[in-house]
Amino acid sequence: MNLEVLNGMLRPKSIAVIGASNKEGKIGYTVLKNLFADGYSGEVYPINPKDKEVQGLKAYSSVLDVPGEIDAAVVIVPAKFIPQVAEECGKKGVKGLIIIASGFSEVGRKDLEQAVVDTAHQYDMRVLGPNIVGILSNSDNCNASFAPCLPLPGKAALVSQSGALLIAMDTSTYTRRVGFDKMISIGNMSDVNFGDLVEWLDADENTACMSFYIEGLKDGRHFMRAAREAHKPIVALKSGVSAHGAAAAASHTGSLAGSGKIYEAALEQAGVIRAADLNNLFDRTLALSLQPPMQGDNMLILTNGGGVGVLATDAAERAGLPLRFAPEDVQTELKKHMPEFGSARNPVDLTGMAGVEWYHDTVRYSFAHPWVDGLAVLYCETAMTIPQEIAESIKQAIDESGVTGKPITVSFVGGEQSEAAMQWLLEQGIPAYDAPDTAVNALAALREFAQGRDTMAKPFVPFNDVDEEAARAVIAEARADGCRNLTEIESKAVFKAYGLPVAQTRLATSEEEAVRLAEQIGYPLVMKIVSPDILHKSDAGGVKVGIKNAAEVRETYHTILKSVRAYKPAADLHGVAIQEMAPWGTEVILGSVNDPTFGPAMMFGLGGIFVEILKDVTFRVAPVSPEQGLKMLSDIKAGAILAGARGEAPRDRAALADILSRYSQMIVALEDEVAESDANPVLVYEEGQGAIVVDARIILKKK
Amino acid sequence: MNLEVLNGMLRPKSIAVIGASNKEGKIGYTVLKNLFADGYSGEVYPINPKDKEVQGLKAYSSVLDVPGEIDAAVVIVPAKFIPQVAEECGKKGVKGLIIIASGFSEVGRKDLEQAVVDTAHQYDMRVLGPNIVGILSNSDNCNASFAPCLPLPGKAALVSQSGALLIAMDTSTYTRRVGFDKMISIGNMSDVNFGDLVEWLDADENTACMSFYIEGLKDGRHFMRAAREAHKPIVALKSGVSAHGAAAAASHTGSLAGSGKIYEAALEQAGVIRAADLNNLFDRTLALSLQPPMQGDNMLILTNGGGVGVLATDAAERAGLPLRFAPEDVQTELKKHMPEFGSARNPVDLTGMAGVEWYHDTVRYSFAHPWVDGLAVLYCETAMTIPQEIAESIKQAIDESGVTGKPITVSFVGGEQSEAAMQWLLEQGIPAYDAPDTAVNALAALREFAQGRDTMAKPFVPFNDVDEEAARAVIAEARADGCRNLTEIESKAVFKAYGLPVAQTRLATSEEEAVRLAEQIGYPLVMKIVSPDILHKSDAGGVKVGIKNAAEVRETYHTILKSVRAYKPAADLHGVAIQEMAPWGTEVILGSVNDPTFGPAMMFGLGGIFVEILKDVTFRVAPVSPEQGLKMLSDIKAGAILAGARGEAPRDRAALADILSRYSQMIVALEDEVAESDANPVLVYEEGQGAIVVDARIILKKK
Repeated sequence: MNLEVLNGMLRPKSIAVIGASNKEGKIGYTVLKNLFADGYSGEVYPINPKDKEVQGLKAYSSVLDVPGEIDAAVVIVPAKFIPQVAEECGKKGVKGLIIIASGFSEVGRKDLEQAVVDTAHQYDMRVLGPNIVGILSNSDNCNASFAPCLPLPGKAALVSQSGALLIAMDTSTYTRRVGFDKMISIGNMSDVNFGDLVEWLDADENTACMSFYIEGLKDGRHFMRAAREAHKPIVALKSGVSAHGAAAAASHTGSLAGSGKIYEAALEQAGVIRAADLNNLFDRTLALSLQPPMQGDNMLILTNGGGVGVLATDAAERAGLPLRFAPEDVQTELKKHMPEFGSARNPVDLTGMAGVEWYHDTVRYSFAHPWVDGLAVLYCETAMTIPQEIAESIKQAIDESGVTGKPITVSFVGGEQSEAAMQWLLEQGIPAYDAPDTAVNALAALREFAQGRDTMAKPFVPFNDVDEEAARAVIAEARADGCRNLTEIESKAVFKAYGLPVAQTRLATSEEEAVRLAEQIGYPLVMKIVSPDILHKSDAGGVKVGIKNAAEVRETYHTILKSVRAYKPAADLHGVAIQEMAPWGTEVILGSVNDPTFGPAMMFGLGGIFVEILKDVTFRVAPVSPEQGLKMLSDIKAGAILAGARGEAPRDRAALADILSRYSQMIVALEDEVAESDANPVLVYEEGQGAIVVDARIILKKK
Repeated sequence: MNLEVLNGMLRPKSIAVIGASNKEGKIGYTVLKNLFADGYSGEVYPINPKDKEVQGLKAYSSVLDVPGEIDAAVVIVPAKFIPQVAEECGKKGVKGLIIIASGFSEVGRKDLEQAVVDTAHQYDMRVLGPNIVGILSNSDNCNASFAPCLPLPGKAALVSQSGALLIAMDTSTYTRRVGFDKMISIGNMSDVNFGDLVEWLDADENTACMSFYIEGLKDGRHFMRAAREAHKPIVALKSGVSAHGAAAAASHTGSLAGSGKIYEAALEQAGVIRAADLNNLFDRTLALSLQPPMQGDNMLILTNGGGVGVLATDAAERAGLPLRFAPEDVQTELKKHMPEFGSARNPVDLTGMAGVEWYHDTVRYSFAHPWVDGLAVLYCETAMTIPQEIAESIKQAIDESGVTGKPITVSFVGGEQSEAAMQWLLEQGIPAYDAPDTAVNALAALREFAQGRDTMAKPFVPFNDVDEEAARAVIAEARADGCRNLTEIESKAVFKAYGLPVAQTRLATSEEEAVRLAEQIGYPLVMKIVSPDILHKSDAGGVKVGIKNAAEVRETYHTILKSVRAYKPAADLHGVAIQEMAPWGTEVILGSVNDPTFGPAMMFGLGGIFVEILKDVTFRVAPVSPEQGLKMLSDIKAGAILAGARGEAPRDRAALADILSRYSQMIVALEDEVAESDANPVLVYEEGQGAIVVDARIILKKK
């Protein structure tokens, strides 16, 4: 991607305001006024076909009349005029269009939106929006938006898919004391997407943390790739995760919500840190923009209140970072700075008797200790202490420790004095919160950041012992027959081409052939009808198991054909499958879909009630490495069964992980053909004994 | 309970400060100063054996020297003197001791604490504490504590088991704008417990909502009863719910943490509304203290921002109150107050174009509509609106609607102006929050309050076809044998006495008797060793199933005895059980424990992997009614299996619910004898076919 072009648009040295107005109350008035009011120092050119001057500045009737260069054009004129505006901007050499105007795909005018984008691309311009508030940047004193002011300065960058929320968050940065360098309204995402902004913000020197409000991505795979490659933390509040919420989101933005479960998987696979709600987005953004990642699991909690210590401990477990007791040497040292009835175990309870010195000494010691990966310092306002002094002692101790690569978060519970002390801590770069749970949750976000980086260190490497050509030949043949539902035999042939172990299954079209194949495969056997028109084979009397000899093969061959013909006379019968009867093993299920946002995605779970009743399944966007496959096995609640619970031998998880990885490669490679597929059941045997796909199904895309 | 005595202590007309001091920095100084500073108008008597005057007031060397009556004595002297202080207070006729001093059970001096309580009770005095901060009451301008000030006035009452947290929350009421009439520090709970305070606060005219911080209850059953009978909402933050948190809590207060799952069940059964964390406690307290309960599930969300509408929708589902689309007539009316691209479905998106009038008209209409049970009004600060005007339009609309029995919560996301508008709303009695999720969560708390009342409307009614005498006779006989582990036959006899259907099982002590019993019961049969010394019968070769005739009975009788003798030569063998072989059914498990906090409590789940691997179980404090038993069946994830999933017939849930209720009655009635018990498995048959306890086990208490 050309970051230079984006840079020109998002950090412009000159701006044309197309639709700049002299009428107070108009957005074209507000945007121009904001550029002046917030001190933008680049060139500003009002474009207005009627007025000669706008807000005291010479106005031009078209960008083509502007003498100097124009980096960004902020467009506020009615939608129908914008294709022409785009044309003129292109000719002028504008780098990007920031289209505030609405009236495009959000009201059904996708055609108009596409026309603008097509024109822009002809001239190598990018388009932000339409249907947005604009962009805000403290680094450039640039408020090219109709939001009332630049946000409280800081190191985070907000990208919001909701304009109203962006404006509201903008003003609330001052009351919440969370600083942002940039705020970008992304709107309809006709061109510039979240993925583009990840790449651009990752390269931006003034951004330390990306903070996203997402309703629905349009560039799932691009976003995932960009996020994985980014060096800075990304924290996202994804709305529409509830069933009703997804419906509400769809009606709001028209973006396809996709499956909540697949979104969840995708964001986690991309190393994106999640925010649970709006407060959590602010709280986590604050810590992520000020503190380094937490490199290990050892969180130490220091407090002067046993109660808040316990609350913080609960919060740590909720946030997926359960506390551990501190090692002996740490406890022994900390014990020196508290009364007899204190506790040095973790949470470290200095008790209500703790003053400035105890806080200073224990923070300094703990922060420097190699066992401690991150520190949460909690303080309850007491009559015996002055919050500002406690704050200063914490800062001093951190500085004196000489340690810089570790995170710290702080919570002060109290009144005005505590508020002021927390404000001071923020100014020193130490995130401070008014509740212990919040401080711990923010520290957990810094741990998630480090973990995400770890996970992505082992990417998927394609298997090379696959035969894509063979798979495509099977599919082409089915297509030639006008079929979209591959038969079991065809499906298994495709699976086999990707190195997946399938139960040997061959097609017999006559009684004699059935016997011949049966003798080759060996008994016992399963026999099943093969027909693209029979989806529920058992219901049609089309399945028989435990066939022991040639006589039974002959008899079954006719019984099956007779049953199926009675069940569905018009069915196209390919013949009868002769299949080896796999010995009993633990049943698991694999399935795939083509997600509208993320493309090929897969599901894994144990068979029967586990999938159907307990919904105990896990999802991933494909492909996954065998290591990630192993992780899927333990992600489900019934994972313990595969590990060998209740005295049974562990199942062959390595073989199963290999199957998951190969399956994921298959659905990605055949994305253009395969709409959905499943392997149900896959039988998994004891360690070293492998696993086998007993039944397989592939449904092709409509073409 | 005598509320008058508690009233005397907690709303005293006269206070003796025992240990009042002239030395700044001493707690005895601060408490006396606070009484003056916050304007307490009752009589105050400093007690100090050395000084003649304390802070300008005449001091007495003992309460016995005080001329007037004393309602409450605030005690700050060292612990060792307090038994004598209690004696003197008793003689003086003091109503209650508020013991701020520490040095009692929290440092291992349970004896000293008990001595004080014993003395107090001799004189009909109550004891609050020891080891507390004191009590604060805005109604009486009474700050009898060392907390720095009275809280922001309001209608809630805080009871905190952590002193540090109480002080910190006290000061933070001003920054968080959540008002309290009272704050009570409960400390070691040597006498006055949470249950007492529920009763007293429920009768207190100035309390609208009880807000509790609980680490561990000491009066589980009393608390549950009081909470169930209370008319006001109780919201509780229970800390120590995580595994590590429970350990931390135990080390902090020395209180027995008990099982987190049983706490959860107990609080829910008592209709207590839970708070997830400290912020949530404040947020829910605010709504519960200002608004009426929400009588149905229909929450309507009005917003000017699609984004926050979606976030609020997600939050509603998280809070257990999923949104529904508004009915046609509501949608039609609301559609009149928004542009074309707005949405009237729910969430109702008035869009960023919404001004004062649209807010006013839609709030007024919705609040009055019978379909709407509760309203959440959300507002994102925009450049086109003034937050205060929006706030006033909401208040006016509510007033004009004439509706009073419905709740409303509000969220304004924005800057200083939004803050000020929310402050104004609070003063009008409308809870307002700075995030949409929070407003929705607070409304959900009002729904939980109404639901809790509903649930408790159907209490447990004991079965009267039980034979407690027979059960106690079986237990007495086992006790006489020196046994605490009842055999299966004894256990089943106890179960049977409570009307529980057990698989017929009789004891044979000879081969001949075995055959005779077998012929009576009928084949097929199960035979099992009966011995209090053999817990794992199968491991010992002590079980055989599917016995079909007399010859097999004879052979099995000897095989079992031989195997078991080889397995454990010293075992006391009662004989061999001859048991009817129940037909196959769905396996479930019942279990009971005597919880240290709540007494007899029970567990229910499906057998095998469901309990062992998936931990899919639900708990209740016993007893439970059959209706509550039915609720247990659907509380577990596998509940759908009992309802008849995957094409199978529904199981006999009514019979199972009856079993749960009878079982719960049994463990309560025999609480003095039974330490734990289980029924494993219970086989449940198709609807109308009942269920049967196949194996049962009872372990008696040590005596």
